[in-house]
Amino acid sequence: MYVHMNIVIVGGVAAGMSTAARLRRLDETATITVVEKSGNVSFANCGLPYHVGGVIEERSALLLQTPDSLRARFDIDVRVRTEAVAIARDARTVRVRDLDSGREEDLPYDSLVLTPGAAPVRPPIPGIERALVLRNVEDTDALVAAVDGARSAVVIGGGFIGVEMTENLLHRGLAVTVVEAMPQLMAPMDPEMIAGVHDALREAGVDLRLSSSVTAIGEDHVELATGERIPADLVVAAVGVRPESALAVDAGLEVAPRGGIVVDEHYRTSDPHIYAAGDAVVKRDALDGEGVLVPLANTANLQGRRIADTIAGRAVEDRPVLGTAIVGVLGHQVAAVGWNEKRLVAAGRAHRFIHTHAASHAGYYPGAESISLKLLIDPQTDAILGAQAVGRDGADKRIDVIATAMRAGLRASDLAELELAYAPQFGSAKDPVNMLGFVAENRATGLEDSIQWHEVADAQAAGETVIDVRTPAEFAAGAIPGAVNIPVDELRVRADEVPAGDLVVHCAVGIRGHVAGRILTASGRRVRNLDGGYRTWSAGMSTRG
Amino acid sequence: MYVHMNIVIVGGVAAGMSTAARLRRLDETATITVVEKSGNVSFANCGLPYHVGGVIEERSALLLQTPDSLRARFDIDVRVRTEAVAIARDARTVRVRDLDSGREEDLPYDSLVLTPGAAPVRPPIPGIERALVLRNVEDTDALVAAVDGARSAVVIGGGFIGVEMTENLLHRGLAVTVVEAMPQLMAPMDPEMIAGVHDALREAGVDLRLSSSVTAIGEDHVELATGERIPADLVVAAVGVRPESALAVDAGLEVAPRGGIVVDEHYRTSDPHIYAAGDAVVKRDALDGEGVLVPLANTANLQGRRIADTIAGRAVEDRPVLGTAIVGVLGHQVAAVGWNEKRLVAAGRAHRFIHTHAASHAGYYPGAESISLKLLIDPQTDAILGAQAVGRDGADKRIDVIATAMRAGLRASDLAELELAYAPQFGSAKDPVNMLGFVAENRATGLEDSIQWHEVADAQAAGETVIDVRTPAEFAAGAIPGAVNIPVDELRVRADEVPAGDLVVHCAVGIRGHVAGRILTASGRRVRNLDGGYRTWSAGMSTRG
Repeated sequence: MYVHMNIVIVGGVAAGMSTAARLRRLDETATITVVEKSGNVSFANCGLPYHVGGVIEERSALLLQTPDSLRARFDIDVRVRTEAVAIARDARTVRVRDLDSGREEDLPYDSLVLTPGAAPVRPPIPGIERALVLRNVEDTDALVAAVDGARSAVVIGGGFIGVEMTENLLHRGLAVTVVEAMPQLMAPMDPEMIAGVHDALREAGVDLRLSSSVTAIGEDHVELATGERIPADLVVAAVGVRPESALAVDAGLEVAPRGGIVVDEHYRTSDPHIYAAGDAVVKRDALDGEGVLVPLANTANLQGRRIADTIAGRAVEDRPVLGTAIVGVLGHQVAAVGWNEKRLVAAGRAHRFIHTHAASHAGYYPGAESISLKLLIDPQTDAILGAQAVGRDGADKRIDVIATAMRAGLRASDLAELELAYAPQFGSAKDPVNMLGFVAENRATGLEDSIQWHEVADAQAAGETVIDVRTPAEFAAGAIPGAVNIPVDELRVRADEVPAGDLVVHCAVGIRGHVAGRILTASGRRVRNLDGGYRTWSAGMSTRG
Repeated sequence: MYVHMNIVIVGGVAAGMSTAARLRRLDETATITVVEKSGNVSFANCGLPYHVGGVIEERSALLLQTPDSLRARFDIDVRVRTEAVAIARDARTVRVRDLDSGREEDLPYDSLVLTPGAAPVRPPIPGIERALVLRNVEDTDALVAAVDGARSAVVIGGGFIGVEMTENLLHRGLAVTVVEAMPQLMAPMDPEMIAGVHDALREAGVDLRLSSSVTAIGEDHVELATGERIPADLVVAAVGVRPESALAVDAGLEVAPRGGIVVDEHYRTSDPHIYAAGDAVVKRDALDGEGVLVPLANTANLQGRRIADTIAGRAVEDRPVLGTAIVGVLGHQVAAVGWNEKRLVAAGRAHRFIHTHAASHAGYYPGAESISLKLLIDPQTDAILGAQAVGRDGADKRIDVIATAMRAGLRASDLAELELAYAPQFGSAKDPVNMLGFVAENRATGLEDSIQWHEVADAQAAGETVIDVRTPAEFAAGAIPGAVNIPVDELRVRADEVPAGDLVVHCAVGIRGHVAGRILTASGRRVRNLDGGYRTWSAGMSTRG
């Protein structure tokens, strides 16, 4: 049934090992060789920061497989500390070098699979050679050693990895400064969604330097563009990753301008005998079909599996990427899927969005936590363009539900109809995802008009009045400047106190504002409900410094 | 724009209050009257057991709204302790009785909404009048009073409510016996899925009497069909609920044989001026379109909202029900959606299924818990027919993802392609839901043939050999009688030890069994992998007593 095949895989972590193991299960007779530049294969990339922090205590827990275990289970020839240095495409051989002995060898292949991953970017800063990065087990060992005895650390870059490193360095007792070029951490999130996590990091003692950059790294400090010096026994560079495409470039394979290896819908490169997957390749965005770099483990693993299917002759379909991702920071779950507002604005793509703040489970059952949600919607088609969630519990679940809805092509209003599991410990009879659907439906059918947090000042300048329908106690604790306080429960009897002209109504999160908006609309007023209420407004404003 | 409408709603909890509140938001001028037989509206039904147990300490936490708060916020005339006693359909009036004064009144309506809910069934057992039930706040007060000073309790019925009551009575320090007529608790689950929860309850000291029935209730005990007497200072009847359809029956509205009010796709009864929703009505099953009774709060709330939409002239579509449900018991999440195996078998509907045991998050990150999953699939169309999940963490998330996939019409194999949020605290790069998709795909494409736990003995009797590919240590700790132990990692070199004939392979959960199956299949053997491995087999066998 099978022709004997000779498969060489370059890179032995997520995509590569998924390819190798799946391929063996599909073809018992193939010769499968995996070469991996580092000293380990199949290690737990995503766990590395937590070993630095001591959360994952045993280093051995990071090593999910070894060359010996892979040989025994899957009859795979795994060679670590072995680098692929050149591909002879006509001959169908790949030259590999044993990094310890320096010995080189040409491995013949029927199919070559490139899964080399992505390398941490080292920004061109004087002294950058002192900065540590985190990609593999060796890097982790270096970080663990460096943390020992260190009192201060600077993390350059506040993306997901930078934030994970920050949390883990805190956990080891270091004074941590994060230097981020953007005005916010965690770029997949929009700023108003992440303001609370900024606060949590500051409360935990992190010195957050947003809109800042490091201009030099000294022996015991870094220097910022402002000239300020910040103590740094340890410097971590976490400014992103770049696809490892040098081997592909040298072999003349098509590579995108930003460095990703270009593959077709079957993960084939421009050479039909060479496949590529994982962080090294350009992926197809689920929203616009354009090429994107999305270095995430879930997609890398799936792509590896699919390459094996393709090589074994099984029909598989490419899956475009939504970029579903999550990070944990100081007990907060920060999760996103699809496009954010920044990207939609930059692309000039029409959108509207919804902010809610809902409880992770029934409010009357102990332990409910607030989840802030943002849903981005195509106003023409009601398609879901993206979502973001932040909360101490259940943010992961809601993003996974929405990611599933997006994959299936459900519209925003369809979220109202989802039938989700409810008991008071686990959710609400109207789940936060259902609530997003209700609001989407109300907006799509014109039942409610909304205004966003960053539009309020302009509306006021244009003569609109802000009616704050919260209680006087809530109003006293903090309010939008110029707002008039009429609690929703008194709105019908105090209707004559509502000033003339167009109105903005708001409550804490948007629900009472919706009720108030309906009451005022019924009396002929033009009303917009402040999306996400005072909470989203104040979070957004706090990001403006 | 709106014609003034007069709406009367009978029943002021989930469906009824959702109707009332939504209707007010859609129509500021309507007259909305809600009559509720009990002393409270809009109370937290699903929280009642937890107040009995003291988990929800304050009784006031159960009362989400009061008549006064509803009047202030929504201008609704809410009348508690008021029973609707008769409907004059021609006159379009409903007669209501004040239960305290006995005074009756005819309320005119343009639309009447029946949301009376369902009442606990009281089985016809001598002494049943001593049994307490749990439906409303008054019942809860009676239970709280009865628990005080009680040392023993018998819960009749081991459904979701019975199990919640059991947990809460345990929490109050009572010795609890559960008497269940079926051989298992929690009927929405198949027996092998729930065996571990049976064990957990027994370990917590619960006396589980399965396949048992109470024949009489005495003053301080119950008597079983076996003649045995069990001490019972307190008896709780939790054998299910029956739709409150007497008012509808008396009015000549169409009611199903099992008691549910019949409604069309707009929740209209056989009288176009009368709507009904919630636990009192017959719903449309999402799988076969047949009428079903599904007394769940999530659907009741949505239906209430939809009735308001319909009355206000908004186009809404009926949503058939999947029956997504969850219960918490002793730290276990027990969740299900769609049909189970018992129901598929009873209906003679073709199906296949998959059992897996996966970690709630990456195994190398501390705190991972096992989730047992079962996926039921239509073998012709690959449609998902149902799913069940049991685990201490993340079972709710996986059922919600699958419920979303089912609502959207995704096939079982499509679960492989879902892009779910991964970080090691929250999931796995290959999420348990993805893994179900991988297995579904392997089975659908003939890559793997499987055998179920209850088929193993027959296979052995027919001469098939069971190969246990776990380690010798695992084998020694417990194995299928007659199984031959050859660890998967030795299978290639010990191939000559595999007996002739057809084979069943298995490991602990199914993953190594799959690898072994592929190795043996490649050598020309006919192999079936034991679905869910030794864990599902032993769980299933334990339910056979």
